[in-house]
Amino acid sequence: MSTPFRFAQRTQRMNPSAIREILKLTERPGVLSLAGGLPSPDSFPVEAVREATAKVLRDTPNEALQYAASEGFGPLRDWVAARLRRDGIEVGPGQVLITTGSQQGLDLVGKLLIDAGSTVAVETPTYLGALQAFATCEPQFAALASDDEGPRPEALAAAAGARCAYLLPNFQNPTGRVMSCARRDALVSAAQAAGVPLVEDNPYGELWFDEPPPAPLAARWPEGTVYLGSFSKVLAPGLRLGYVVAPPALVPKLLQAKQAADLHTAGFNQRVVHEVVRDGLLDRHVPTIRARYAAQRDAMAAALREHLSDATEWQAPRGGMFFWLRLPSGLDATALLPRAVAAGVAYVPGAPFYAGEPDRRTLRLSFVTLAPAQLATAVAALGRVVREALAELPPLRRVA
Amino acid sequence: MSTPFRFAQRTQRMNPSAIREILKLTERPGVLSLAGGLPSPDSFPVEAVREATAKVLRDTPNEALQYAASEGFGPLRDWVAARLRRDGIEVGPGQVLITTGSQQGLDLVGKLLIDAGSTVAVETPTYLGALQAFATCEPQFAALASDDEGPRPEALAAAAGARCAYLLPNFQNPTGRVMSCARRDALVSAAQAAGVPLVEDNPYGELWFDEPPPAPLAARWPEGTVYLGSFSKVLAPGLRLGYVVAPPALVPKLLQAKQAADLHTAGFNQRVVHEVVRDGLLDRHVPTIRARYAAQRDAMAAALREHLSDATEWQAPRGGMFFWLRLPSGLDATALLPRAVAAGVAYVPGAPFYAGEPDRRTLRLSFVTLAPAQLATAVAALGRVVREALAELPPLRRVA
Repeated sequence: MSTPFRFAQRTQRMNPSAIREILKLTERPGVLSLAGGLPSPDSFPVEAVREATAKVLRDTPNEALQYAASEGFGPLRDWVAARLRRDGIEVGPGQVLITTGSQQGLDLVGKLLIDAGSTVAVETPTYLGALQAFATCEPQFAALASDDEGPRPEALAAAAGARCAYLLPNFQNPTGRVMSCARRDALVSAAQAAGVPLVEDNPYGELWFDEPPPAPLAARWPEGTVYLGSFSKVLAPGLRLGYVVAPPALVPKLLQAKQAADLHTAGFNQRVVHEVVRDGLLDRHVPTIRARYAAQRDAMAAALREHLSDATEWQAPRGGMFFWLRLPSGLDATALLPRAVAAGVAYVPGAPFYAGEPDRRTLRLSFVTLAPAQLATAVAALGRVVREALAELPPLRRVA
Repeated sequence: MSTPFRFAQRTQRMNPSAIREILKLTERPGVLSLAGGLPSPDSFPVEAVREATAKVLRDTPNEALQYAASEGFGPLRDWVAARLRRDGIEVGPGQVLITTGSQQGLDLVGKLLIDAGSTVAVETPTYLGALQAFATCEPQFAALASDDEGPRPEALAAAAGARCAYLLPNFQNPTGRVMSCARRDALVSAAQAAGVPLVEDNPYGELWFDEPPPAPLAARWPEGTVYLGSFSKVLAPGLRLGYVVAPPALVPKLLQAKQAADLHTAGFNQRVVHEVVRDGLLDRHVPTIRARYAAQRDAMAAALREHLSDATEWQAPRGGMFFWLRLPSGLDATALLPRAVAAGVAYVPGAPFYAGEPDRRTLRLSFVTLAPAQLATAVAALGRVVREALAELPPLRRVA
């Protein structure tokens, strides 16, 4: 049937999410999934949410259910600003915009800063959802050469002219890596010298296991950094609440972009979350998430040591939700996935996380959705699949 | 202080919302506001929302608070599709995308269909929020010549090449006008002949006072129409729930745009609303809104007859939330506003609703936020302001 619709150019940059397609595979019964980036539902403070919703609907039902300010609910903006000041970011509530998840923050920042054909610098690899959000503005991506601590400062120095550099300093998705204090300083200096502003995404910063990460980039260069935060990993993602903190010069346009995008984020949800966090629940609740995830991290690390061949490279993350693995030479994580799923374990191949040429040996494992015993079973199955695939390689490839 | 940020071109098209700025004025004590497009909070089914949230958090807390499908909550999509089939739109749940308010539907449709410089045809005047959403994609707007029934078919026929025509057939914001059945047929024929697909926005269709409006455009041309709906006016806007219904060919890209925009709409809110509507609450609840708003419409019509000069043009709307007035020749609604606010009444000038040359004599009055007695007081004040302003015009202008 003929259609009168013509797609805009940017739709050529839109693709089915690789992760999404993989998640469909993992819905088969019997498959243990290490693929999703889903927080453990056991970590959701259901009782606190229940009490908060009851209170909001009792005390302020009309306000909670009515249209509300595009900036967000005032007391929640105050709370966010105060929390960030504790992390060393000098910010007033007027700089805080509440968003529909921090994914929306990426969409809004893209609209503000990216023209078709302009350059956006990103880590190698980087968060897939950011590539998708920014892609709707049709930029060129510059993939910054990166190591275990994140992008290399000289790579950022060479990115002069980029509209922004998108960085995830804490327990990055997908690699789990954290930038050292020295690397942060060096990256900020390089960005300042090159005149490249920063977009700092920090969904995982609270989920540290051993020690808090160094101060955010926004604390080091407040006038040159847009900071994105989220309630998804410390409370619950299903409420879709995040926030953008921007230098004052950006706030009016950011707000206009927000209005055009969805008028405002659900006032009901904002009031509920404010009610949940206002009396310091996170200070009691987040440590329980850290303890839970640290135990799962340890279980996965033990399983990887036991079951994965010596030729598979990985490091135990110091926070967040993910291990990042590099398979032995000759193996392709995307090609291996169907075999892994047949063996009862799913993961996310690393390739979609690369803005440039992908390292096809890489893959991401989440350790937070399954219990420790299941993690061991899943990693054991993955180990068998890797060993079998290795054994099938032609001798020359195996040595290479 | 110097900033490393450079704004994208599209930000030049973003402006502070005129309505938003006006709403700030109306927050002064003593000002009766006819400006906001806010549903009456007395129409919110608070008790039903309370019961639904309690049930959702009791029965499916983990699912409600977890990440969820970008398409939306399956049972809610089923419900929307069934409801639209009742209105004559042939649609399956696979064509329904749940959005963060129908404003987000406009953002997504823009991303799908509009390239920089391409043409979007709109009514004269049209919904300001749609102009804002589409403007981020940097189109040219073609303002279709319109009369009391909406755009004229010959104007749409002349818009060949436009990426879409954005139409609000039912109790349009801002004019309150409704398209007759014959006008709908003629517009669909013109659009088909010109090869211009339609974007049909229907937030107010359920709010008819005398008789239901004619069948939607999407029922007349399903393969050429994207349809936008909302729970904001029949339940509550603060939950931010709307939906887009698209021809199957558009669904995959629409879904990818949704994922990039905010991953998904809050699952908690979707489950609560599904719980509220699943047993037919709207069939009992919406008639109470109609009765309430019809009485308010009558009160405002009576007040307008009593207090506004004969030279002010208006018609009583047959549904929705708005009266549209045209002041006597020589008066400018924007210029008059500060004086009206000083006299204790606020409205929205019509100018921002025009994509082309505005008719500066026009203004929009909402009749749903104030009680009938307050409506009479507000309109009386407006009448005094208009008469005074008229009396001050030079004799020549007054005659013109």
